[in-house]
Amino acid sequence: MNLALLPDGDFLSDHRVRLTGRRLEHLKTVLRANAGDRIPVGRVNGLIGEGHIRTLTDTEAELDVTLHRKPPAPLPLTLVLAMPRPKMFRRVLQTCASLGVKDLWLINSYKVEKSFWQTPWLGDEALQENLTLGLEQAMDTVMPRVHIRKLFKPFVEDELPGLVSGRTALVAHPGTDQPCPTHVADPTVLCIGPEGGFTDYEVGKLVEAGCQGVHLGLRILRVETAVPVLISRLFDLCI
Amino acid sequence: MNLALLPDGDFLSDHRVRLTGRRLEHLKTVLRANAGDRIPVGRVNGLIGEGHIRTLTDTEAELDVTLHRKPPAPLPLTLVLAMPRPKMFRRVLQTCASLGVKDLWLINSYKVEKSFWQTPWLGDEALQENLTLGLEQAMDTVMPRVHIRKLFKPFVEDELPGLVSGRTALVAHPGTDQPCPTHVADPTVLCIGPEGGFTDYEVGKLVEAGCQGVHLGLRILRVETAVPVLISRLFDLCI
Repeated sequence: MNLALLPDGDFLSDHRVRLTGRRLEHLKTVLRANAGDRIPVGRVNGLIGEGHIRTLTDTEAELDVTLHRKPPAPLPLTLVLAMPRPKMFRRVLQTCASLGVKDLWLINSYKVEKSFWQTPWLGDEALQENLTLGLEQAMDTVMPRVHIRKLFKPFVEDELPGLVSGRTALVAHPGTDQPCPTHVADPTVLCIGPEGGFTDYEVGKLVEAGCQGVHLGLRILRVETAVPVLISRLFDLCI
Repeated sequence: MNLALLPDGDFLSDHRVRLTGRRLEHLKTVLRANAGDRIPVGRVNGLIGEGHIRTLTDTEAELDVTLHRKPPAPLPLTLVLAMPRPKMFRRVLQTCASLGVKDLWLINSYKVEKSFWQTPWLGDEALQENLTLGLEQAMDTVMPRVHIRKLFKPFVEDELPGLVSGRTALVAHPGTDQPCPTHVADPTVLCIGPEGGFTDYEVGKLVEAGCQGVHLGLRILRVETAVPVLISRLFDLCI
């Protein structure tokens, strides 16, 4: 955690927050902070700044916060991801949040096992927690929105064409002719399949909805590797 | 596993292999293969092709193999990585192998905890196993070389200048002026620090050895995210 992300509920007033629970624990055990110390903080969906620890006890900490700096720019990306295997899912969520993905659609696909949808990591609180970890890592404050679509066909037929409209839209699929473009600056929709890839039928439906098939070279990458590789190729993260 | 990687010890003759242990288990439980099936195979440090399963029993499988295709191109990269936290290390190894890193130096740094060097994942067999998993994922056969350097100063003073000589050499360090270059085609040395980054002293020593400090934008990324992001930025993986 390179920044303590403060939800609205932490604020006692505009400039005073009270931390308890995980955040307090982190302050004490990881940052080994003491009263008087200053730590980087940010308000959820708001500005970044500094927190000055006034009091720190076993049960709570109070900080004066000064928020003045904008969070890093979001990616102009709508990421459509076949629901990953649970043990990979948390990391993918954190990675997406840390890279600046703000719009994430988790969709079904033939090779998504039914059990993947049962993971407790899809619960609201767990989603928030993992996205928070990613934001805190990257010193960002803007919480990504996550949309869950457990049926492939209604999503690609009824919703995807609207998402794609006016945007560059790509489906990463090994074996297609076109290499993935580099450094697009425009709003982009990127679809990434499950382990084993989208089926030909699914790729057909995605193309029908307006997505272009692109490849990433000869290597087949795991989803957790493909996400940062594709994002780093599509966008200039140094801007 | 998108390809079964066959070490020399599996070969009964040039065109016949016998599989036991993990490989056999994978054949039966993940690929659910039967006698008569054909699966993608590759010989360690050799060619890729097809294995035709002749017999499959509880204890072993015999395959006829035909090897005819080159593995994907290696990256012209010498990756110098501060030893990651053990729970992250396995994944970083697999990611490096899957992306085509062939030359990996694990080095010490002030913020590398001493305990990291105790991990069993640094043992020869464990290294090979995780690199194999990465190669099998990416359908590559060429085993990366891993060099372990538990002392920072002798490495940067005595060995790094030789590695850097005639190559583009970079140290990824947040807060430097220069953005990381894109799509260099030349042999490159890339140094990536630990969680919390290299110290100023260490960056100074790396720069003295010939490395240029480069940043990746405002976001601070975990090592396991920074590695694929930097590699995808530095090299065109679609070639």
